[in-house]
Amino acid sequence: MAWKIAIDAMGGDKGPRPLIEGALLAAAESGSHIILVGDEHLLTAEMKESTNGGLPFEIRHAPQVITMEESPVTAFRKKKAASIRVAMEMVRAREADAVISAGHTGATLLAATLILKTLPGLDRPAIATLLPTMRGHAVLIDAGANVDCKPIHLYQFGIMGSGYGTHVLQRDRPRVGMLSIGEEDNKGNETTKEACQLLRKSSLNFVGNVEAKAVYRGFADVIVCDGFIGNIALKISESFAEMIESFLKEAFMRDTRSKLGYLLLKPSLGYLKHKMDYAEYGGAPLLGVNGTCIIAHGASSAKAIKNAIGLAERLLTHHVNTHIQEDLAANGDIQQLNPHKLSLWRHIRGSIPFSREREDPEPEESA
Amino acid sequence: MAWKIAIDAMGGDKGPRPLIEGALLAAAESGSHIILVGDEHLLTAEMKESTNGGLPFEIRHAPQVITMEESPVTAFRKKKAASIRVAMEMVRAREADAVISAGHTGATLLAATLILKTLPGLDRPAIATLLPTMRGHAVLIDAGANVDCKPIHLYQFGIMGSGYGTHVLQRDRPRVGMLSIGEEDNKGNETTKEACQLLRKSSLNFVGNVEAKAVYRGFADVIVCDGFIGNIALKISESFAEMIESFLKEAFMRDTRSKLGYLLLKPSLGYLKHKMDYAEYGGAPLLGVNGTCIIAHGASSAKAIKNAIGLAERLLTHHVNTHIQEDLAANGDIQQLNPHKLSLWRHIRGSIPFSREREDPEPEESA
Repeated sequence: MAWKIAIDAMGGDKGPRPLIEGALLAAAESGSHIILVGDEHLLTAEMKESTNGGLPFEIRHAPQVITMEESPVTAFRKKKAASIRVAMEMVRAREADAVISAGHTGATLLAATLILKTLPGLDRPAIATLLPTMRGHAVLIDAGANVDCKPIHLYQFGIMGSGYGTHVLQRDRPRVGMLSIGEEDNKGNETTKEACQLLRKSSLNFVGNVEAKAVYRGFADVIVCDGFIGNIALKISESFAEMIESFLKEAFMRDTRSKLGYLLLKPSLGYLKHKMDYAEYGGAPLLGVNGTCIIAHGASSAKAIKNAIGLAERLLTHHVNTHIQEDLAANGDIQQLNPHKLSLWRHIRGSIPFSREREDPEPEESA
Repeated sequence: MAWKIAIDAMGGDKGPRPLIEGALLAAAESGSHIILVGDEHLLTAEMKESTNGGLPFEIRHAPQVITMEESPVTAFRKKKAASIRVAMEMVRAREADAVISAGHTGATLLAATLILKTLPGLDRPAIATLLPTMRGHAVLIDAGANVDCKPIHLYQFGIMGSGYGTHVLQRDRPRVGMLSIGEEDNKGNETTKEACQLLRKSSLNFVGNVEAKAVYRGFADVIVCDGFIGNIALKISESFAEMIESFLKEAFMRDTRSKLGYLLLKPSLGYLKHKMDYAEYGGAPLLGVNGTCIIAHGASSAKAIKNAIGLAERLLTHHVNTHIQEDLAANGDIQQLNPHKLSLWRHIRGSIPFSREREDPEPEESA
């Protein structure tokens, strides 16, 4: 089936070019209908250059952009014609099936939560990121959409991550684990210990706590955590990789003998780099919203954008949102235990880690 | 000055041998007075073998051991003659200046907290671990002694870490950062945001939040975090290192060309491995207790034990505990804000991540 994919064509650190080129690659492969959302004149000119004159994609005019320097809350309120808002409105109006954004993550989160709203029964959307492991990929959820999570939220992340693991990664009853500091259910902090109890009661294939030291061994398919912790776990891994790369470069350039060794090893190391390349994943879905939304890396290449579009198509084709709701319903008794019902707005203001504002009044869109 | 160092000679995954050999190396270098605490017969026999008959160290008989499989709380209560208890009692009685333990971390934490107690004004002890970074070492505190920390605890970890950075790492006004998910003070979870305000008010050289992606760049000398998060940050780095090592080995063995390249690179890679070797640090001090206690890795080599003893000597020689108390006093106004005074016992029972018990009544030693 050809899906309609709206791309926030003004987001991304490198301008619209890699977004357009990635969309061209994806459309050629899957036949999806692409809608570029952004400044019409700019996008028309860019597209003509990328395609030698042809205009294969629909353009939806959205003259404003939320930049990385802006407070997403203020910008979201003021810029009604921001590309991310217009793209998200298209999904709400069913003019598009999914949104791809490589722009301001905070703004994307905010737009998705306020415009699409969460799926019935879910309190918060969460970012599901793929991790490389020694046994294929694992899903880490939440990678940074929420801080100060309650146990019920972690439980809901487990439901979402399991749905993603089952229907997109095609794992049979994916092993769901709680990121913690010891193996037994009574190890962890107050939140993870309570969340373990909820997950134990659920129909998920819950394997208990996963210690951080075992994450990259791949013993769990889905790793559940608070977004503060998930963000730190992912980012510190990146930081460690950066350090190792720098130390390795130093070792490779140390003397003539090492340089020669490096030259010989280069092809094998290229293969290793490929294994760890984020562009292979394309992006991370924001699960839990009533729609399909992929958050791509700001520095995405055309290949990464192509893969992000492919990921959106898989989420749609496999009806992941429907399955998540079925799993929620099948565990309705756990959901009843939820004592925490924050106003959506209070949650959003308190927990968008990417926002830059200090104090902000509630917007008109407040839920 | 020759310090008296008590070694829990029954701890450690490899038995007393590397502990004795490490102590021999340390004593030869610094002239410290070593006391081996553990089963007298066993230690006498082991020492005779290690020294060809000589008995250079004092032995303090302690016939019991807390094993890795035991609940530290139950074992601590029942085994009054456990080596870690006897060693800790020696420090309390000033028969020793410091304890080195490569045994059960939970039991060591418990023994230190209940027997030595915390320094006046400090609510919780914390583990200060050294991290390699692209610019020398940084201290991460807390590496796992506490979960569910309050802002005042994170502030106190900052004081302790700064004292360690100043007097042991010899950094001039060490840069203290809060591990978080964004650079600005208003990024983070409720706890880190409040703790940032306390640290901003303090006399420390507080540099604000340190994002996880920047940890290994070495922009901060002291990285403050809750023990749950610190444990995950450290252990996921280890897990990532393990995966990279496995992928690298695969790349090195891929074909004849790669194998040859690896042979040429081997000396340079050995140098890299040396940079990352935990044995170079020896162990991590448990700061905040009224005494000096080093937690060494269970699998410590003789070299690691020697370095752990050296670390204890540096903590003692530089009067780190005195300096920590001076810094606390200099910031007495912040300390006044502390609204959280849990009973020591309630804290211990709730937060020992290494314990293995399910439910346990309060011990007689309850504070």
